[in-house]
Amino acid sequence: MKRPPKARGPVQSGITRREAVSGAALLGIGAGLDRVLSGPLGSGARTSGPASSANSTVPFHGAHQAGIATPPQSYLHFAAFDLADASVSDLRSLLQRWTTAAALLTSGRLYETVSQQPDENPEDTGEALGLGPSQLTLTFGFGPGLFGSPGRNPLVPAPRRPTELAELPPFKGERLDAARSGGDLCVQACADDPQVAFHAIHVLSRVAAGTAAPRWSQLGFGPVSSAGRSHSTPRNLMGFKDGTDNINVGDAAAMGQFVWVKAGDGPGWMVDGTYLVLRRIRMLFDVWDATSLDGQERVIGRYKLSGAPLGERNEFDTADLTAISAGAPTIPANAHIRLADPENNSGQRILRRGYSYSEGTEAGAGQIDAGLFFIAFQRSPRRQFIPLQSRLAASDALNQHTLHTTSAIFACPPGVRSGGFIGEALFD
Amino acid sequence: MKRPPKARGPVQSGITRREAVSGAALLGIGAGLDRVLSGPLGSGARTSGPASSANSTVPFHGAHQAGIATPPQSYLHFAAFDLADASVSDLRSLLQRWTTAAALLTSGRLYETVSQQPDENPEDTGEALGLGPSQLTLTFGFGPGLFGSPGRNPLVPAPRRPTELAELPPFKGERLDAARSGGDLCVQACADDPQVAFHAIHVLSRVAAGTAAPRWSQLGFGPVSSAGRSHSTPRNLMGFKDGTDNINVGDAAAMGQFVWVKAGDGPGWMVDGTYLVLRRIRMLFDVWDATSLDGQERVIGRYKLSGAPLGERNEFDTADLTAISAGAPTIPANAHIRLADPENNSGQRILRRGYSYSEGTEAGAGQIDAGLFFIAFQRSPRRQFIPLQSRLAASDALNQHTLHTTSAIFACPPGVRSGGFIGEALFD
Repeated sequence: MKRPPKARGPVQSGITRREAVSGAALLGIGAGLDRVLSGPLGSGARTSGPASSANSTVPFHGAHQAGIATPPQSYLHFAAFDLADASVSDLRSLLQRWTTAAALLTSGRLYETVSQQPDENPEDTGEALGLGPSQLTLTFGFGPGLFGSPGRNPLVPAPRRPTELAELPPFKGERLDAARSGGDLCVQACADDPQVAFHAIHVLSRVAAGTAAPRWSQLGFGPVSSAGRSHSTPRNLMGFKDGTDNINVGDAAAMGQFVWVKAGDGPGWMVDGTYLVLRRIRMLFDVWDATSLDGQERVIGRYKLSGAPLGERNEFDTADLTAISAGAPTIPANAHIRLADPENNSGQRILRRGYSYSEGTEAGAGQIDAGLFFIAFQRSPRRQFIPLQSRLAASDALNQHTLHTTSAIFACPPGVRSGGFIGEALFD
Repeated sequence: MKRPPKARGPVQSGITRREAVSGAALLGIGAGLDRVLSGPLGSGARTSGPASSANSTVPFHGAHQAGIATPPQSYLHFAAFDLADASVSDLRSLLQRWTTAAALLTSGRLYETVSQQPDENPEDTGEALGLGPSQLTLTFGFGPGLFGSPGRNPLVPAPRRPTELAELPPFKGERLDAARSGGDLCVQACADDPQVAFHAIHVLSRVAAGTAAPRWSQLGFGPVSSAGRSHSTPRNLMGFKDGTDNINVGDAAAMGQFVWVKAGDGPGWMVDGTYLVLRRIRMLFDVWDATSLDGQERVIGRYKLSGAPLGERNEFDTADLTAISAGAPTIPANAHIRLADPENNSGQRILRRGYSYSEGTEAGAGQIDAGLFFIAFQRSPRRQFIPLQSRLAASDALNQHTLHTTSAIFACPPGVRSGGFIGEALFD
């Protein structure tokens, strides 16, 4: 069922969710026509859960979009959208509305009109009232279909398509669910409260109604990546530390070399943007959990507890890919970290920012449906993700324990300056 | 694929996940045969997310099971299991192993043997290493099928079946997914870190291998219930405060009257236990989000922002079911809170302890699949949940905005004394 398009645009109320909290007790409003959603009302803070960062914000405006170099928040709500029969001006208008909404939501404000009437349906759905911004970031991307695809006319002139923004090639062993892959647009919502991330996607979906509809989405928890070596490395659901060798988002040189698009890399509208690759990687726990500790460590190439490369003592020791033990490579030839090592990938690296996911039990099979929702940002998928994943898909020992079921690629334009909108340069 | 049963039983290592953290740096163990999973190794604390309660525990032993009168933690991982061709002694043995595991996991210890060998597969899957107990509770329940069902012999002598433990009757309007309903056994894992709850269900599933297999499971976030009036009431995904009139778990008289089974209520093994009813209630956001603020408030019978009953000023004001405005009831005849009011339910109340859930986008439909995973504890489903839900299913204005898709009932036995095991009295 299609939601009725809203005639009114959003107007910044000037009332944040946090201000709403403090005003509620004073005013005691609860009855009558003065109860307006944009007014100074709201509930208190959540009684349990991640409270420390509830009142903390990540700036929306900047040279780059937030949610990429941002140290990963605790929760993810990712959504891919498909455009209906939208014109280029529809798309432009949607990006303008999304920009307005994103600036409000990430600062902990309501997406709401000032004079909400009781006989109108609330523009802001309300479930994040009182929860605070919780470090919400919203990161937007454009899929290849915007620039035309087989049987479909381009919405944006094809010459503006970056060469890098092509559908990913098939990889050996993957079993993709087409209904949960691809998309024309995407929004990555990350926050330290899952209800805040849910609310943001809920509101942005309403804002998109009539122009774009949700195609698929994915929730995640427990970021499987490290913001840098000042913190310990989280474990993925296989129980291994994951992201030890990730790019440190504080390393400006590495971010510049491997993540941010530069002038000359392609069309100018993508400068300071980046390319996002997503893979839903299910872990096959029945086999993995029955594998010996030694066997698990030889698959990964690291010790399970310390995270050290095989043959080394500490997590951040350099893996010695030449070491031999008892006549065989200490780190097996098909170990995950050997194949993923920059040394075997022309020195290329990617910024991983993935999350664990769990969707319960596969009906009838008694198997846990859980794993890693892989999220990677890079300057050039053609030189970074694609050759890396081709190598892994061919030989990685981890392949017998995982299955890729979702795949997508998006171009994330640069950040938004105050007064601008997401992807504005695409329309210049 | 069936996991190979493990010959070894769990042995308490004496090393907690937290102790493991502090020992890691000192020992620098990472290579060689001395890397034992039960040894003093582990990762540091999570870098972001709910850290405040990471090191906090909820006692496992007690007169009642934890996770019922426990103020709700931030995350839920619920799992229902089916017994295979198990004997009563298999069931008893499983409950003993689960008890051992639950006591270790809830105190933040590893479920692991002392002398884990590299050529054996790790008993503890490892993904919660370093995360702390995070207020983990594990609550166990028995489904009606244990006592026999059509075409199936009882595992436990039928006379021990409590009259209260009968499959729920069909309710008007529900559309149940049989593969995600029912079950012979259940475990409710709640924690302030979702990875800790995931790990607990993962380990308990391994421990059950060969005797019981996961049937269905459900993740949840953002507890939709209040531990009492000292905290503000959370909002559900419809944006309304939910649980304002819930039983306060600190109200011993109400807990005794409405939640805990008493001597004389039925078979003695259930004294100090309670009955658990689960309903997955999908919210139909396409209709709800298009409903006016006034319309939404008349469906619920409360103001959206303040949570006050219609006609009142403050959230905890008593609803006046007799009030008339402009010739009609101020709180409409079919408003949710009118039909759910104890005054219209023979004075009966239930303890709600539900969570919001979101499973992304329904493939092809562009609709959000999200809502409330309703969890209620009570002394007598026949006098509490069943008549209440019958009344709501017949007339509640909320029915046009929701759809019940999962249903289950379990008997949660009393708590475990030190040295005992879950449901022990059932086997006396």
